[in-house]
Amino acid sequence: MRRVSTSALAAIFGLLFTNASSFTTAFSSHHLRSSQRRVFQSTSTRFNMSSSSAAANTQDQQKQYQPDVSQFMTGDRPAETKDYVMQQTMLRVKDPLKSLHFYCSVLGFKLVMYSEFPQWGFNVYFVAPVDSVHIPQGDDETAKAARWKYCMNLPGCIELTYNYGTEQEDGQVYNTGNADSTGTTNGEKVKGGFGHIGITVPDVYEACERFQQMGVEFHKTPNSGGMKGLAFLKDPDGYLVEVLPQGPMIQKPVDCAGIEANNGGEGYKDNSK
Amino acid sequence: MRRVSTSALAAIFGLLFTNASSFTTAFSSHHLRSSQRRVFQSTSTRFNMSSSSAAANTQDQQKQYQPDVSQFMTGDRPAETKDYVMQQTMLRVKDPLKSLHFYCSVLGFKLVMYSEFPQWGFNVYFVAPVDSVHIPQGDDETAKAARWKYCMNLPGCIELTYNYGTEQEDGQVYNTGNADSTGTTNGEKVKGGFGHIGITVPDVYEACERFQQMGVEFHKTPNSGGMKGLAFLKDPDGYLVEVLPQGPMIQKPVDCAGIEANNGGEGYKDNSK
Repeated sequence: MRRVSTSALAAIFGLLFTNASSFTTAFSSHHLRSSQRRVFQSTSTRFNMSSSSAAANTQDQQKQYQPDVSQFMTGDRPAETKDYVMQQTMLRVKDPLKSLHFYCSVLGFKLVMYSEFPQWGFNVYFVAPVDSVHIPQGDDETAKAARWKYCMNLPGCIELTYNYGTEQEDGQVYNTGNADSTGTTNGEKVKGGFGHIGITVPDVYEACERFQQMGVEFHKTPNSGGMKGLAFLKDPDGYLVEVLPQGPMIQKPVDCAGIEANNGGEGYKDNSK
Repeated sequence: MRRVSTSALAAIFGLLFTNASSFTTAFSSHHLRSSQRRVFQSTSTRFNMSSSSAAANTQDQQKQYQPDVSQFMTGDRPAETKDYVMQQTMLRVKDPLKSLHFYCSVLGFKLVMYSEFPQWGFNVYFVAPVDSVHIPQGDDETAKAARWKYCMNLPGCIELTYNYGTEQEDGQVYNTGNADSTGTTNGEKVKGGFGHIGITVPDVYEACERFQQMGVEFHKTPNSGGMKGLAFLKDPDGYLVEVLPQGPMIQKPVDCAGIEANNGGEGYKDNSK
């Protein structure tokens, strides 16, 4: 387990994230000395860098890597797509009760709909951060149809899929997508595609105080590592859950783990390398 | 590549999905003869079955696998979580322009916000199916702050992460989470955790006609395989995108690939086994 002290980066990320608008500004490389740049790369939680990425330092390459994407931000959506909803992200889980406790009791999601298929060996559970008053309750056909319709029109659901028997298996069952031990071979790292889900909250530090008290495992507390003001939790299967603010990025002097913002923070393990 | 004909299952899934409310009803096992059950399992796109799942046939086991989850559907969310938003699902992509074309031009998403970090070797692109009129435009600090705030409060965004250089690599770069060739070793299958994202649309068959005309690669057209009325697309990295209806599940006689609902359909490759 590698631990890093990143006090220089604390200041840089403080600058980057204190003002939300800075997040959309591409920093020019003179903001980082090369030694700092190396440290940052070793602490990135977000990415599985390819070997070629380290060479991306010439002006031509930088231009190549910053394509003009303005066409995708403006203008009308194709008319045929105007009612499309991004409804679900499906994750397989080892133990549905542990996952439902985490997503519902800890993160404040509700179970919107579920389906059990014992003859086929699986159940699916749709969860989303909504008030239960909006969820059609009841077991009659009308209620079930209304619940289906409500769920299918609700953006940002997580579909937790449980294949029978996995809760009896030892250890981690599923690859989390971040090149952790499951899925690696011969010492080589798998390039994980899926990275994480992310929730936004009114106050990251307050939210994390509660998560800490509830015994949630952190991948990164708000002040640990180089990035201040955001956190990563681990769900019961090890999937990462990013915790971000709904307003400007801020940092507070001390976080839920007692880590101070101005010393870079210890206790941050990067498992994406 | 295994192709299966599943005419018996066509009828079963027609029954299952024609009435949306049936989706929340656990079918008892007598709906399937054992031979049909085996075929179904071999055609499931949703799950990487564990070896133990096949044994889940006793009444005790079925009871064990259907936990009482009613507590998670009703009642108030914890007060501290009442404003939480399920904001993002992060996927790493090989080529941002190809991904943006797919998510925006094909699926009707808009680029809500992006950030370029050339000195650190990555860009991130947040996309969601929203009208651009809602996205604060402009490059001044006020606009950027408004855009950040809008994005962070928008449920169901996809954060496409691009690590510089991947677009120059040969073939598939990222594991899609479904035990495809990337990430397997020594003939053993990786248990992929992430399964897919899913969009809902007013009419699956109409949507798929358009996708077909645009040259989108299908993992499953609406009538192919056993499950009628839903489709799976592949995004440019091979991630699966499920296409589901916003209302009741229906099936139409012929789908975009000319496959008839009443013959089970050919051309369905299951790569999750």
